[in-house]
Amino acid sequence: MNETKHEIPYKIYLEESEMPKKWYNVRADMKNKPAPLLNPGTMEPMGYDDLRPVFCDELIKQELDNDTAYIDIPDEIQNFYRMYRPSPLVRAYCLEEKLQTPAKIYYKFEGNNTSGSHKLNSAIAQAYYAKQQGLKGVTTETGAGQWGTALSMACSYFDLDCQVYMVKVSYEQKPFRREVMRVYGASVTPSPSETTAVGRKILAAHPGTGGSLGCAISEAVEAAQSQEGYRYVLGSVLNQVLLHQTVIGLETKTALDKYNITPDIIIGCAGGGSNLGGLISPFMGEKLRGEKDYRFIAVEPASCPSLTRGKFVYDFCDTGMVCPLAKMYTLGSNFIPSPNHAGGLRYHGMSSILSQLYHDGLMEAVSVEQTSVFEAAEQFARVEGILPAPESSHAIRVAIDEALKCKETGEEKTIVFGLTGTGYFDMYAYEKFHDGKMTDYIPTDEDLKEGFEGIPKFPGNLI
Amino acid sequence: MNETKHEIPYKIYLEESEMPKKWYNVRADMKNKPAPLLNPGTMEPMGYDDLRPVFCDELIKQELDNDTAYIDIPDEIQNFYRMYRPSPLVRAYCLEEKLQTPAKIYYKFEGNNTSGSHKLNSAIAQAYYAKQQGLKGVTTETGAGQWGTALSMACSYFDLDCQVYMVKVSYEQKPFRREVMRVYGASVTPSPSETTAVGRKILAAHPGTGGSLGCAISEAVEAAQSQEGYRYVLGSVLNQVLLHQTVIGLETKTALDKYNITPDIIIGCAGGGSNLGGLISPFMGEKLRGEKDYRFIAVEPASCPSLTRGKFVYDFCDTGMVCPLAKMYTLGSNFIPSPNHAGGLRYHGMSSILSQLYHDGLMEAVSVEQTSVFEAAEQFARVEGILPAPESSHAIRVAIDEALKCKETGEEKTIVFGLTGTGYFDMYAYEKFHDGKMTDYIPTDEDLKEGFEGIPKFPGNLI
Repeated sequence: MNETKHEIPYKIYLEESEMPKKWYNVRADMKNKPAPLLNPGTMEPMGYDDLRPVFCDELIKQELDNDTAYIDIPDEIQNFYRMYRPSPLVRAYCLEEKLQTPAKIYYKFEGNNTSGSHKLNSAIAQAYYAKQQGLKGVTTETGAGQWGTALSMACSYFDLDCQVYMVKVSYEQKPFRREVMRVYGASVTPSPSETTAVGRKILAAHPGTGGSLGCAISEAVEAAQSQEGYRYVLGSVLNQVLLHQTVIGLETKTALDKYNITPDIIIGCAGGGSNLGGLISPFMGEKLRGEKDYRFIAVEPASCPSLTRGKFVYDFCDTGMVCPLAKMYTLGSNFIPSPNHAGGLRYHGMSSILSQLYHDGLMEAVSVEQTSVFEAAEQFARVEGILPAPESSHAIRVAIDEALKCKETGEEKTIVFGLTGTGYFDMYAYEKFHDGKMTDYIPTDEDLKEGFEGIPKFPGNLI
Repeated sequence: MNETKHEIPYKIYLEESEMPKKWYNVRADMKNKPAPLLNPGTMEPMGYDDLRPVFCDELIKQELDNDTAYIDIPDEIQNFYRMYRPSPLVRAYCLEEKLQTPAKIYYKFEGNNTSGSHKLNSAIAQAYYAKQQGLKGVTTETGAGQWGTALSMACSYFDLDCQVYMVKVSYEQKPFRREVMRVYGASVTPSPSETTAVGRKILAAHPGTGGSLGCAISEAVEAAQSQEGYRYVLGSVLNQVLLHQTVIGLETKTALDKYNITPDIIIGCAGGGSNLGGLISPFMGEKLRGEKDYRFIAVEPASCPSLTRGKFVYDFCDTGMVCPLAKMYTLGSNFIPSPNHAGGLRYHGMSSILSQLYHDGLMEAVSVEQTSVFEAAEQFARVEGILPAPESSHAIRVAIDEALKCKETGEEKTIVFGLTGTGYFDMYAYEKFHDGKMTDYIPTDEDLKEGFEGIPKFPGNLI
């Protein structure tokens, strides 16, 4: 509430001319490259031709390219980015004052678009390449709904058909998410459904099931393969998705450079890893090339702790085991986080790129419990205005914790975190929190053991 | 989808240093000033002392000041503005291309904050002056919920108690709106309630009532007067609110001036008039001073057509008749728009300032039906990305209509409209629209007659 004039504005917006024209591919600078995807039938590495029945051609090239450091962002995608980007890099003056910390806190806010999250950055790229290939449409799955919304918006822009398989329990609990997708002309099917063989099989075995992300993935893949001119697209985990999301980190870096700010710590929430990977990539590149050093912290929910308690092995990306296998930190493709867990970040695995970087000691990871996450969310909302998504609030929690450590030590560290989205469609979770009905859950070693048993056993997997 | 490089960016953001430091008071340039408020008991004009029991002192001064053209925005409010402002002035390139119009369309987007609308611009000012006066808290009413949310955020920032009376039917239909207010620490009471005499009286007479805005106002005023250290605040209609909202128009004008753009037509939706008044004020000032000419268009719903079909007389601001009377275009304080009408803009009257300007022929007004409004909303969402609030979509409808006229005539007019907010909490209305269940309603002359009968008959009122 003071009247100080600050040298650094509350929000740093780039000019259009300063926005990235190329994505940055961190794999080019990694000594240990992420391991290739394996064919679930043969356990052999998959090449371009193996992946063509499922994914768009150009996206496969991006998926497999471990060498090209900078990849042009096509003009059409840059035009779309200009509709909702640059996103602001915000100096959290009010939060700093509230915490009475000497730390300088910044957050890159990706929630100012109708999808409500960073997912749109990759959705528009994937829709573009599908359109370029002359496809009729794409299929995908969505859990919490951000990805499905983002893809609906992107497909609407390029006049592509968009078929979303939405986890049934989420479809029923979040009718408004579904309605937003309908605004953008997508068809939304609760999963499991009668529209696919795998859906019918699951419904026959479990008539009352609320579905799962793994099942929705399997349905979406089947739907893509059974329709002429369709491909499957995915909103996280894959190398291509992290590549598109580097627009977050590149904008962040340009904004910081403009004001000669060098961050000490960069923090992001991690589910499949797309936001964190996108945010840290350009900074990680400097670290990999030995130019600078930073601390990177991945924050995951204690109820789904793939990095902090998972195994670094080859595992299926879906529960239906129709997708390729990826080498990653995983809790096992059968692992399902406790239903008391709110919001996203409930994926059993983690991006292969981030898994490798973590394995090589280039990044840290911590897990946090959801009650403390919602406490941080509310504290943040009250001083910074923005109502954060539960996912994003994991990063807020750790940013506040680090800022409070600075308060103890007196260090003036610069902390940057990714605020991936808004929580407007998560008010049910906030309500539980306000009513004191929110509970925490940390899986026991026994709980995890069950998930680990689902990890495929073959010679390449050293468990 | 073309690759043109544009001279004018998609979004014009001002630098912090370019943000307004003073509000502009259009009354200073009006030859015919808006008529004073009248005491409902004596029908005499109300002065500073008469208004003190209800409103905050400094806000009364602003309410009564018809002479000072520029009023300083206190630093604390400027600081808060920097958290979510400047709001972008967006060039609607994608909409222009979709419409194939030679018109140039711009919109000032006020939805990028957690309250989801422009209401925050006045909420923070009113909370600030309440805090300065040493008050404990404020009371208010909310219908659709944007104003209540905005005030909750503002009060949270200044650590003021915030008591919101929310129309019961809205409280029950929009539990998530209520939950957002709880995030910011407000107490939200469904109205009518047992907490006030007027509420108890209404409940006794109509046990199952869903409430109305007029009733909620009466409860909030009573609550403020019956608690030590509380005042009542209002989110629209009043002169002070229009003053605060001129931050919208001032930013818009600075952004346009930077690129030497002169608008031909400026369009805004009009409920109580706060957004429209705020947007057009600086431009209207130029017109009043004879410096420039613009067309201004107020857009109201056909179901609640106060400007286009109302009477320009003194009327009560609330149904409980406890508030002062204002001279304005009104449908009568008993007029209640058809329940099929979605969203806000359902106020029976209109800001005295705008009423006077309209009466003096300085502004036009049109009314539109809601099905065509939602058609425009969806068309806009699909090409411009943003999911608009039903209220804002009234302006979109007319902006599109004007752009299509330009297509016919070949005129390259510059159209600016106010996009007041987002529709994330209005998906129920979108669902009705998608399901073909949305209907239109235009009151007959007979319907209106009933409302007009409630207008007070006294010598000053020439009906």
